Amino acid sequence: MQSAGIQACIIPTTDPHIGEYTPDRWKTREWISGFTGSAGTVVITMDKAGLWTDSRYFLQAEEQLKGSGIDLFKTGLTETPSFSEWIASELRAEDCVGIEGEVFAASESKTLIEFFTGKDLKVRTDFAPYDSLWENRPPIPVNRAFVLPERFTGKSCHEKIEEVLTEIKKHQADMTILAALDAIAWLFNIRGNDVEYNPVCLSYAVVSEKETVLFISSEKLTQEVSEYLQLQGVVTADYGKITDYIQKIPAGTKVLTAPSKINYKLYSILSEKCEIKETTVHPADSLKSIKNETEIAGIRNAMLKDGVAMVKLLIDLEKAIENGETITELDIEKKILKYHSDREFYFGESFHPIVGYGAHGAIVHYEATPESNATIQRNGVLLIDTGAQYFDGTTDITRTISTGEVSETIKRDYTHVLKGHIQLASAVFPAGTVGMQLDALARLALWKSGQNFLHGTGHGVGCFLNVHEGPQSIRMNHNPAALAPGMITSNEPGLYLAGEYGIRIENLLLTVKAKTTDFGDFYAFETLTLCPIDIRLIDRSLLSPEETDWLNAYHQKVYDQLAPLLSKEEAGWLEKRTRAIIST
Amino acid sequence: MQSAGIQACIIPTTDPHIGEYTPDRWKTREWISGFTGSAGTVVITMDKAGLWTDSRYFLQAEEQLKGSGIDLFKTGLTETPSFSEWIASELRAEDCVGIEGEVFAASESKTLIEFFTGKDLKVRTDFAPYDSLWENRPPIPVNRAFVLPERFTGKSCHEKIEEVLTEIKKHQADMTILAALDAIAWLFNIRGNDVEYNPVCLSYAVVSEKETVLFISSEKLTQEVSEYLQLQGVVTADYGKITDYIQKIPAGTKVLTAPSKINYKLYSILSEKCEIKETTVHPADSLKSIKNETEIAGIRNAMLKDGVAMVKLLIDLEKAIENGETITELDIEKKILKYHSDREFYFGESFHPIVGYGAHGAIVHYEATPESNATIQRNGVLLIDTGAQYFDGTTDITRTISTGEVSETIKRDYTHVLKGHIQLASAVFPAGTVGMQLDALARLALWKSGQNFLHGTGHGVGCFLNVHEGPQSIRMNHNPAALAPGMITSNEPGLYLAGEYGIRIENLLLTVKAKTTDFGDFYAFETLTLCPIDIRLIDRSLLSPEETDWLNAYHQKVYDQLAPLLSKEEAGWLEKRTRAIIST
Repeated sequence: MQSAGIQACIIPTTDPHIGEYTPDRWKTREWISGFTGSAGTVVITMDKAGLWTDSRYFLQAEEQLKGSGIDLFKTGLTETPSFSEWIASELRAEDCVGIEGEVFAASESKTLIEFFTGKDLKVRTDFAPYDSLWENRPPIPVNRAFVLPERFTGKSCHEKIEEVLTEIKKHQADMTILAALDAIAWLFNIRGNDVEYNPVCLSYAVVSEKETVLFISSEKLTQEVSEYLQLQGVVTADYGKITDYIQKIPAGTKVLTAPSKINYKLYSILSEKCEIKETTVHPADSLKSIKNETEIAGIRNAMLKDGVAMVKLLIDLEKAIENGETITELDIEKKILKYHSDREFYFGESFHPIVGYGAHGAIVHYEATPESNATIQRNGVLLIDTGAQYFDGTTDITRTISTGEVSETIKRDYTHVLKGHIQLASAVFPAGTVGMQLDALARLALWKSGQNFLHGTGHGVGCFLNVHEGPQSIRMNHNPAALAPGMITSNEPGLYLAGEYGIRIENLLLTVKAKTTDFGDFYAFETLTLCPIDIRLIDRSLLSPEETDWLNAYHQKVYDQLAPLLSKEEAGWLEKRTRAIIST
Repeated sequence: MQSAGIQACIIPTTDPHIGEYTPDRWKTREWISGFTGSAGTVVITMDKAGLWTDSRYFLQAEEQLKGSGIDLFKTGLTETPSFSEWIASELRAEDCVGIEGEVFAASESKTLIEFFTGKDLKVRTDFAPYDSLWENRPPIPVNRAFVLPERFTGKSCHEKIEEVLTEIKKHQADMTILAALDAIAWLFNIRGNDVEYNPVCLSYAVVSEKETVLFISSEKLTQEVSEYLQLQGVVTADYGKITDYIQKIPAGTKVLTAPSKINYKLYSILSEKCEIKETTVHPADSLKSIKNETEIAGIRNAMLKDGVAMVKLLIDLEKAIENGETITELDIEKKILKYHSDREFYFGESFHPIVGYGAHGAIVHYEATPESNATIQRNGVLLIDTGAQYFDGTTDITRTISTGEVSETIKRDYTHVLKGHIQLASAVFPAGTVGMQLDALARLALWKSGQNFLHGTGHGVGCFLNVHEGPQSIRMNHNPAALAPGMITSNEPGLYLAGEYGIRIENLLLTVKAKTTDFGDFYAFETLTLCPIDIRLIDRSLLSPEETDWLNAYHQKVYDQLAPLLSKEEAGWLEKRTRAIIST
């Protein structure tokens, strides 16, 4: 920093593809801080260092930063300054902030540059000393890609390219650049192994009337993939050639980009000669988020499999507890992997399983380790959040389970979380509604008790793709992407009491058309996930008759759909756990 | 337009102070189109003309535009293009759009310029041919100002200036310019008569460490006002001198402005030499929106008066209907004016009363005329939306009243609107919550029936100031201003069935602190308005026990507070109309 004349540098979590999860090569923030969470930013000045991360990771970050000299800044709390504000308060006028433009979204870089310039600070966007400092930095991954057949995707790559071209024209553009790995995997009907839990392959793409080019290393291209792409009219080029290609785009070309989905380095090169047409949401992301009939049929099938796996797991767990056997968080994790992997079209997990007993459940993104591994006791609650990647769909489910005696307080808290879950699941809303408008439905029962959860209520979910995808979300923050029929979004209110317990109930929702009236189109949610919600944890006096009806109808559906796939004994257990409850 | 080389011009509703309601001098849109609604934009091209307005005015605009050659564009419907999109589709590359920068907010002008430039169109911001075209254009008003004593404002002008200066410094600015008339009236503790229903006086203001200058015509300055301002350390200058003053601000001065609250002409002059510090919400607006103890005591008193006036009106109305007397919408309007004006500290109405019987109730901003004036019949519902300006507070209330026989459908619709009203009124929410997060609470019961209302659910309300004020709102659209303790906001869900009937139930809400927990501060609403909600229109089977409890508690409070101010006979009527209902 000193030799570069820089007084503060910012190290984000993301990579040149602005991914939420990144290949090991770009885990610079983890390498420098030791903090392994999926979200966080490190800032280093000449005499201080800080990590900014959100409530999901407060406890984990505190643990992992011990002795590092890096201070924890808890984002989302009103008293916490943003890292930019903090830098501005630490530096003096004319000081310089260094970032590596290649791993920052163009939108974020522009915001940072504007902010720091307003504070009389300079910004350098080519500060990237990590290659020489980072011993044994992992190489760029070169795992093989494979084609996802149209029986799963429902559309050919060629058809999707045509749809993207139509959207590009609507934006008065000639061309678009894609850097987001999930959008590229969707568009080309290919999948890969380059990012843990995300079946994507490192690549860029250019789509224009003239040609569609996929930038991908030749090591990844099996004969099958090459032939498919050729058949679909796609040209391939080496991964590293994207910069050259962009530099050679004729001056004045109108290029559509979503600045939040392209890195600042590519964006800067583009903006030198091209006319950039900016969009908040890239059409490829919008198109990807609206699942077609084949994809919806696939996810329904994946839900049946996931439901069966969960039922088998819950039965094993209950038996072990009843029989007084020792069963730990890691034992449960292993069982989940087994039951998932026994199912048809299994590819892997969709994220690292979270199995948190008691106080561990309050650590929102807890990962059990041999050191932390807790044995399940006959009291309190256990939080299990897992998901799988099947060729026909991506799943994500959380259940909070009674392991024996529970207090009335836990029941009250659990029921408040459940009320929120049901209120959101049963919402009806007009076309154009965005997630922020519905988010409070999932929180109101908690808010009335002076409680809250600080993570989002819902994220988009891909089809055999990333378990977190845009453009839609259901959050306390504003996101202009409207909820549209065909989108899959999670519904996961929770409550976390540090040192005590954590509660979360998560199902996936499909947005569907509800009705059309003089007031326009109205949409609703269909709950896709099939797994009992623990009725032993409910304080029935807190549920309204409508909420009780929703739960009973949901449980009837879970039973009807899963029972035929279970043994008689398993079906008997499910019958008991999905029995209708009576409103008090 | 032809001689200026302009192919399209845009005429908005606002004025140099970016007011929602404007002095007659700037009612250019009304002059040119004949449309008298409070919101709308006219666009004229060489061969077409259009008016864009929202759902409150669809019926009225259709009526008033008949034969004008101006087409109606209904905003808020997905199929309606914005006026900018429409202009872009009508004009050819290199054509020019003309606007009068002085009557456009800087933010809106900048958006328009960016949009049209992106469409290869030019923009001229000095197109203002109206003075020569508009015969007998009203002059700039010069009504007298007066001081609002500190017994009503609770704070001296001097104290408020200090508070604004503190905020300016937080934004690293040296100075601010105020153009919003309500912010100026608030800051200087003055009121006036320049805008119908809004007790403000035409003025600009500059606040800096060096001096505070109020730009106001000398005709307005009574001796009382001059003396008060002098005592508070305020310098006065002529209204027309603001431009000169801004031109002479030393280069490099840091000037805080909210681009949505300053006109583009002033903003352009400022931006030539000064460093503009932009803010979404001007600190004067934030400070004004948080009512102090004196103001809250005042509004409570105003609510008692308004409640008494409403009770007297409703009794008269009921008697007239019972006795078979002819009573019309205009008769009711006269009665409201009388009952308001009988009260202490009455200054005027806070907006034109809306008294709409039957189908007229579905015209959201209906104003009865001698031609439209309907006689109240012994069936259906009557919508009454009125408000007054008292020295101690501004009121705004809507009640929908049964006038005799009503169908089960009306009762169902009324109860859905009431459910929304109660859900919002009884919300509890964490600090930082914005209106968009709560808006759905007021709509969900309607949405579930495939119904909606297309206006906002809540607007800020001033203290003896504008009945619509910012920064907060509760709407389907995003507004980043959080709801904070001390703010007054309306709660007015409704339902409008064209040609049939309109329903709206409106109370004013005070945001109050509810509790502080480990999860931070939580706020709630206290309903300020005191007036029975028509229980004869409720379908009790649709209310939850909690909703019934809310209504009964509200009615108990209405009775307890108003009864001591009423005659025995009036109190008897109120007792009947506020009787607890039983949940079915």
